[in-house]
Amino acid sequence: MQTVTEAPVVRVGVLGCGTVGAALVHLLVEKPEVMTERTGLRLEVARVAVRNLARERGVAIPDGALTDDLHGVVTDPDVDVIVEVIGGIEPARTLILEALAAGKPVITANKDLVAVAGVELVEAAVAAGVDLLFEASVGGGIPLIRPLRESLAGEQIRRIMGIVNGTTNYVLTRMTEAGASYGDALGEAQALGFAESDPTSDVEGFDAANKAAILASIAFGVKVVTADVYREGISCVTAADIAFATRLGYVIKLLAIAERVGDEVAVRVHPAMIPATHPLASVRESFNAVFIEGEAVGDLMLYGRGAGGGPSASAVLGDLIDASHNLRAGGMGRASALGQAQIRSIDELTSQYYLSIDVEDRPGVLAAVAGAFGDHGVSIRSMEQDPLATEARLIFITHLARESDIQATIAVLRELEVVDRIGSLLRVVGEG
Amino acid sequence: MQTVTEAPVVRVGVLGCGTVGAALVHLLVEKPEVMTERTGLRLEVARVAVRNLARERGVAIPDGALTDDLHGVVTDPDVDVIVEVIGGIEPARTLILEALAAGKPVITANKDLVAVAGVELVEAAVAAGVDLLFEASVGGGIPLIRPLRESLAGEQIRRIMGIVNGTTNYVLTRMTEAGASYGDALGEAQALGFAESDPTSDVEGFDAANKAAILASIAFGVKVVTADVYREGISCVTAADIAFATRLGYVIKLLAIAERVGDEVAVRVHPAMIPATHPLASVRESFNAVFIEGEAVGDLMLYGRGAGGGPSASAVLGDLIDASHNLRAGGMGRASALGQAQIRSIDELTSQYYLSIDVEDRPGVLAAVAGAFGDHGVSIRSMEQDPLATEARLIFITHLARESDIQATIAVLRELEVVDRIGSLLRVVGEG
Repeated sequence: MQTVTEAPVVRVGVLGCGTVGAALVHLLVEKPEVMTERTGLRLEVARVAVRNLARERGVAIPDGALTDDLHGVVTDPDVDVIVEVIGGIEPARTLILEALAAGKPVITANKDLVAVAGVELVEAAVAAGVDLLFEASVGGGIPLIRPLRESLAGEQIRRIMGIVNGTTNYVLTRMTEAGASYGDALGEAQALGFAESDPTSDVEGFDAANKAAILASIAFGVKVVTADVYREGISCVTAADIAFATRLGYVIKLLAIAERVGDEVAVRVHPAMIPATHPLASVRESFNAVFIEGEAVGDLMLYGRGAGGGPSASAVLGDLIDASHNLRAGGMGRASALGQAQIRSIDELTSQYYLSIDVEDRPGVLAAVAGAFGDHGVSIRSMEQDPLATEARLIFITHLARESDIQATIAVLRELEVVDRIGSLLRVVGEG
Repeated sequence: MQTVTEAPVVRVGVLGCGTVGAALVHLLVEKPEVMTERTGLRLEVARVAVRNLARERGVAIPDGALTDDLHGVVTDPDVDVIVEVIGGIEPARTLILEALAAGKPVITANKDLVAVAGVELVEAAVAAGVDLLFEASVGGGIPLIRPLRESLAGEQIRRIMGIVNGTTNYVLTRMTEAGASYGDALGEAQALGFAESDPTSDVEGFDAANKAAILASIAFGVKVVTADVYREGISCVTAADIAFATRLGYVIKLLAIAERVGDEVAVRVHPAMIPATHPLASVRESFNAVFIEGEAVGDLMLYGRGAGGGPSASAVLGDLIDASHNLRAGGMGRASALGQAQIRSIDELTSQYYLSIDVEDRPGVLAAVAGAFGDHGVSIRSMEQDPLATEARLIFITHLARESDIQATIAVLRELEVVDRIGSLLRVVGEG
């Protein structure tokens, strides 16, 4: 066991000191001797760069470390490793590229940036031969990227399904367990600080789409960006859908799904019905989890806190220790170039579908509606009238059908005189 | 992307070709070009050593690789890395020590050996400066050891609770979901091949105790061996206990628990009652999962297949790729020495307890029984007569109490004339 003074020193430059940055600095300065005992390294907080020097950070930043010169930290010869926890695209992107070009390993928790500019950043890391690690960018404190990259390095991954947004999972959990409406559950999440005052990024699936792109890139080793991800949010999900799903033995979750289909990769985010016995169904409240299906390993699930200062700082710290060990051992950066992705459009995917349709209550209606399904080759597994609905509401569950066929069916249904309203379309996944 | 011929070659010597060994060889020889594309390495199956050359292995072993000279593979200068999947203590232990002394990284899936001789093997790896990896020794294909060691390197882990034996989890699942008796559920597990004809190692918790020792060593960085682990099995758990637990909103699981108590480490295996909403409660059939509670990261759970050729071979392959990268990069072995563990005896731990007691059905019995609890400072949270039992059976749940106090209580209860039989003692964990 090494003492604090013998251990190799690594000088850390932290860009940003919000929730995650402050939690990280706290972990680093709190018990340095315990950290050294555990890691064999002396991790020094050399510089902490913030935009507003006056703001209280709630953590004891070492004397002389605080600065408002972000760029200066990156170029400081007395800084060995850069941690980027500013968030947003710029100046984070430019600062990371500068750090990599200067030969400094970079750890980032910035999911927006990695999802949008990950390909560029990885290429810069490969060119510079230094580490670029971003475990905290998906699933907060859950070890996801390292297990995918290292533990499963030889595994042929078929599919990844993740609950990667805590806000929407909290809302759906409250709707399921307390029978709350979407609006009430969202209001409750906002009151508790789980949802922002403008919840669009969460509830419309933009945040989950960023994480889906990152997971797909890592799992399949190819370039996937947010623009490649098909996306639907949860604002269309009604209390009636939830009640019906519960009665049938399903749970509704917002899933980020990345799967290999032949030589192509399909990546999407949408609410889905999963069997109540599926491990993802038991992921409650604001927890996250990623379910991985591999050829040899079978089914895996990794579960934990997807956000928050402590969990994200824990993931950043794991990356920081890893990069520091590699740096002090004189190792090269371990980023590897991503291949080109062939993206399969959602139109070509097949699924089972749940569809609710409000219709006029008169003879011949079912024949007209069922005809629209049949005309597009969509076979119906079950149909029933929703006993909980006040109007005449038909609930269909289909057999496996192509997305383009169900969409064509819906287009025809919309034009039928007997159809008052097309409700939620939910894909059924995780069976068998 | 590298082509197969450009990639650095690593020559693998495999000791043993049972279920896991054959599955590993299959993964390595099946699509070498895909493996090289994914890993940047050419992993060649140089030697496969078995005791019986005549036995059919169900996998295409490369020409000339098969041998019955285990020792010869370890010393062969044309073998770079050793994979040990023979199982058992000897000759596995001697072969691994020889390989490490010869400067060859070793990957092993051998939980019995790691639990018993892990300290010696780790010290040999540290002395030789080569890698010793054993991800497959706990939780089969679930990434556990690498996340604990690397992702959570800076995390202060408070407690680990694992379902680490698939046989007992299958038996308890069948008892819970189908109302089966212990004997019937075990017979079913044996018929399905989930349990061996002599199930002692599984049902009495010996296998789980081995894994608990390994997990505790990794999580806390200290020397814990199987002899340090308090152990109870599931053969005492009755259908009545399960029914009662279900009615109270609990699930009974065999848990391996390792926790930090002050400067000490407590490690134990016993059946426990956990709330039905706890993530471990949804781990069904023969699946395994490990629940980790950390200071910064909060709650994590890692879930998957804890046994079987494919999952275990996947974990071995992840280790093999990792060790091969490190070898080809010229890196030193990354084993680190374990500290001394101060083991806290279970007598000093506190828990809530569930205890069932069959008594004579006459006045004054409850006062006598309750007096025994009170005399030892054990406070009762609830008492009820089991409505499902034919005799007079009292079910007690205590408040937090010391193990030594509840054991002293039981010793007195056994001597009471009004007590016919002391039933199961189950610890209640995972609440709050």
